[in-house]
Amino acid sequence: MQEVQIAVTIAPDYQLDRKLTQQLQHEQAHFDIVELRIDQWPDFNEEAYQQMLETLREAVPEKEVLVTYRTTRQGGQGDASETEYGQIIRALAKQQPDFIDIEFDAHVSPTDVQMLVNEAHHHRVKVIISHHNFTETPNLETLRFLYYKMHQCGGDILKVAVMPRSPEDVLTLMSALHHTSVTVSEQVIGIAMGDLGKVSRLATGVFGGSISYGCIEEPQAPGQVQVKDLRRVLKDYR
Amino acid sequence: MQEVQIAVTIAPDYQLDRKLTQQLQHEQAHFDIVELRIDQWPDFNEEAYQQMLETLREAVPEKEVLVTYRTTRQGGQGDASETEYGQIIRALAKQQPDFIDIEFDAHVSPTDVQMLVNEAHHHRVKVIISHHNFTETPNLETLRFLYYKMHQCGGDILKVAVMPRSPEDVLTLMSALHHTSVTVSEQVIGIAMGDLGKVSRLATGVFGGSISYGCIEEPQAPGQVQVKDLRRVLKDYR
Repeated sequence: MQEVQIAVTIAPDYQLDRKLTQQLQHEQAHFDIVELRIDQWPDFNEEAYQQMLETLREAVPEKEVLVTYRTTRQGGQGDASETEYGQIIRALAKQQPDFIDIEFDAHVSPTDVQMLVNEAHHHRVKVIISHHNFTETPNLETLRFLYYKMHQCGGDILKVAVMPRSPEDVLTLMSALHHTSVTVSEQVIGIAMGDLGKVSRLATGVFGGSISYGCIEEPQAPGQVQVKDLRRVLKDYR
Repeated sequence: MQEVQIAVTIAPDYQLDRKLTQQLQHEQAHFDIVELRIDQWPDFNEEAYQQMLETLREAVPEKEVLVTYRTTRQGGQGDASETEYGQIIRALAKQQPDFIDIEFDAHVSPTDVQMLVNEAHHHRVKVIISHHNFTETPNLETLRFLYYKMHQCGGDILKVAVMPRSPEDVLTLMSALHHTSVTVSEQVIGIAMGDLGKVSRLATGVFGGSISYGCIEEPQAPGQVQVKDLRRVLKDYR
């Protein structure tokens, strides 16, 4: 059974307010990674980003920090063009968080993704290659091939999140996750979003998943559960 | 999402002792059905059985009672021949518990199973048609066909329990469960046993399962969890 780390997703404004900082400290037994979403910022601000990383490191020094700029193309709020996206990723990596999220999409050249991964690695930042489908769950073969193409980008962790329309879709996602986890050397994440897919968040370790994303206030993605509950339930599957 | 009832399995000697009775009363918020296993008795004793049903009804009057005589052929301790098995089932039904478990196995004639089901129904006892495989998980087609053959026996609930050897086996069981739950009119139960299969007990409602079996002391089957934990975790999937 794969050991599962818990990432708590936060999406603050340009400043990390006192309340959220205290919540993170208060709940720190229940997560291992803070995922900082910055795509909700109207514009990327390097100084605010740098300051926020510092505040996070002071607030929860034992936790790893993952920074994510999620574009509208992948269900986020970031409207950066592809060129701007590359610039943002470079700026994120330069400040050396523990992880950055780099999106993988069919229309993006794998070579471009690989170049960004290499630059992140140059700064000793680990990379989560991610792909999100908010409308459906591709079939098993397509999902397996998707993970395989992401595997070729040279990242450290591969993440696929899909929207299930039926319980069968949830099983398909978990099957692709498990298959990939025993096939590639990278760590693997697989999420079936929404209430229907909760089992993919709670039982992910059974199927080789290495990280489960939770929240401390409002869910930041459909089906996200409180990290406190996540920690408790993940233990039931040990 | 299927509403899931919790069955607590108990396997007492010929008498229900004070301690177990009190435990059942103490934990009664956490289960809906008591499954009384009687195959551990060296010999079936009709009087002891009748007395035990009465004691159970007095102790937890709001709960339904399911009586199970599990043969060695299906992983239990009951060494009744097939003729004796039929006699025991008839004796069980005569006392009108809410449910009895009737085993389905490839080598038994479906007509014989149907006859027992009809007799139980004559006594207004609902029937769980069950099949257990403690060595492996048949493939998806075989499992679906197994449920279908059980469906033809005219029972009220169909139960299949298998032993998973890999996470894929667990997904296969849950897929067959879900497929059957949307195909037949009976309620359906599907269990992947052991620690690996715990998700099939905890998330069964997502895949159409209607009953999850738990315990109040020692697990009575591999992977059974405490009913208290079961009730709590089943809620996480609502």
